[in-house]
Amino acid sequence: MKLATLANGRPDGRLVLVSPDGERYAGAEGIAPTLQDALERWDEVEPALRALAAELAAGGGTPLAGEALEAPLPRAWQWLDGSAFPNHGVLMQMAYNSPPIETDLPLMYQGMSHCFLAPTADVPVPDEAHGIDFEGEFGVITAAVPMGTSAEEAAGLIRLVVQINDWSLRTLAGPEMRTGFGWVQAKPACSVAPFAVTPDALGEGWSRGRVCLPLEVQWNEAPFGRARGDVMAVSFPELVAHAARTRALPAGTIIGSGTVANVEYRDVGSTCIAERRAIEMIEHGAPVTGFMRFGDRVRMEARGADGATVFGAIDQQVVKG
Amino acid sequence: MKLATLANGRPDGRLVLVSPDGERYAGAEGIAPTLQDALERWDEVEPALRALAAELAAGGGTPLAGEALEAPLPRAWQWLDGSAFPNHGVLMQMAYNSPPIETDLPLMYQGMSHCFLAPTADVPVPDEAHGIDFEGEFGVITAAVPMGTSAEEAAGLIRLVVQINDWSLRTLAGPEMRTGFGWVQAKPACSVAPFAVTPDALGEGWSRGRVCLPLEVQWNEAPFGRARGDVMAVSFPELVAHAARTRALPAGTIIGSGTVANVEYRDVGSTCIAERRAIEMIEHGAPVTGFMRFGDRVRMEARGADGATVFGAIDQQVVKG
Repeated sequence: MKLATLANGRPDGRLVLVSPDGERYAGAEGIAPTLQDALERWDEVEPALRALAAELAAGGGTPLAGEALEAPLPRAWQWLDGSAFPNHGVLMQMAYNSPPIETDLPLMYQGMSHCFLAPTADVPVPDEAHGIDFEGEFGVITAAVPMGTSAEEAAGLIRLVVQINDWSLRTLAGPEMRTGFGWVQAKPACSVAPFAVTPDALGEGWSRGRVCLPLEVQWNEAPFGRARGDVMAVSFPELVAHAARTRALPAGTIIGSGTVANVEYRDVGSTCIAERRAIEMIEHGAPVTGFMRFGDRVRMEARGADGATVFGAIDQQVVKG
Repeated sequence: MKLATLANGRPDGRLVLVSPDGERYAGAEGIAPTLQDALERWDEVEPALRALAAELAAGGGTPLAGEALEAPLPRAWQWLDGSAFPNHGVLMQMAYNSPPIETDLPLMYQGMSHCFLAPTADVPVPDEAHGIDFEGEFGVITAAVPMGTSAEEAAGLIRLVVQINDWSLRTLAGPEMRTGFGWVQAKPACSVAPFAVTPDALGEGWSRGRVCLPLEVQWNEAPFGRARGDVMAVSFPELVAHAARTRALPAGTIIGSGTVANVEYRDVGSTCIAERRAIEMIEHGAPVTGFMRFGDRVRMEARGADGATVFGAIDQQVVKG
């Protein structure tokens, strides 16, 4: 089952279901007006949503042709982002000669959640000197999760899987990280691909609480990376349990994987510029690649074994904000 | 003008106005159903709110007698907490022999905002071993703040002033801070005193973008601290501008001062246990005071020059969650 949100002038948009191939949609507002509402009443609304999804799979619905797709949750009560691909951290530490992060717990920060940008929205940044970078990630959207939920229990509370661009301003990020307080200025609004997908609909693309798909990234239409999501050192259920250790999570909490990164980076590239620069620093002593400029575009998309889009594409440009 | 939220079984409660002495209230749901709604339509609703506040000040309204007061915003789209009292940081660094935080920018982290505890609600914590601590703070609630707003402009976008207990789990806080990612597990839901007050109603208690009032803290009914809020190194308008450098803030954003702390800590005490422990470590080589136990109570209240309560009291106990 694929869910999406169409713009309707209201903050949460309106809920629609999308056909498995992402080509057609059907309004679901008769079942739940918004995705947030559906998540809060999931057990009650899921049968009707599944029935509508079956009609779509059988060929029903209206062609998606230029409808304004929002982020599945244009705003959420909570966004917690992990850093679960160890090779990303290893490269950054080698490049910047910084000590390894000492922790035996998953890494996680809380980011802004009152606005998630639409997948084709312009991305406003005040200054190119901030070091504008994309970060390709996968994420999950949870049911309500009680405090103290185990990873085993959390696996059953993952309602949807999403694909995220966690926009980062690198010049601001290092100084903020060194305060220990995490990131505020360095992490403006994320963008989210248009389709939120139930884990069962991912088939072999969802295993061991991980998204087993490559995330293709293009920067100004040139291939930049194609890293796989299956090598997370910490699974999504473990990230959810970590987040819920001392707090209850509300339905609609979004939890991210951190930048998708593989040890075979020479073959698969990277899903953020900072990591490519780190590799250049390690291999050549200095970074060669610059960060994004106003007018630059980034495209991110995951495709299944059949070549079909899974979450739809993020495809957007950076503009002066 | 004092605003408050009464419990009505819904997530955002219902908006009421409270008399200057905090003794009487009048329902304001005819003007705006919730405080969040009022903040989103402030210019439109302020005249009617002010007219109702004048009736209350003239003796109207109903006695507040046991009504269930929620946090003014039981949930908010964003909570950003500063650390604007330098003596708090100085003491913590001396006690833990940690290097000074290298930054010339205000310190700030993003915390959970989907739940703010009512001022008398029990505070659930899973384990006493987490180092349960209170942190007495002041905070502001903003209008919508455009990205790039200056501190001068931000001063006019502060709608309300609040008093906050930023609950902290100290055993978890140090390791999370050392990751650079900020706090997730160490910062469960904050509590907020019942009355949100417009800056003009604070009189001499609001000057230079700071709350010029002492914050009285009692732990299990024994005086613990009475630190003044006027010595913030960074004002609230400066904190708002810092938060808005690379993002627009939605109406209803809550921005905190960090732990209220004074250089005269020998006279005025502290507003968190960690700071008292730091002083003990500096003066005696080891901490003497333990953290909170289940069943312990904390009370926090700010009083004006006339001795009257300003924000109402936070008065609550810690329970096993």
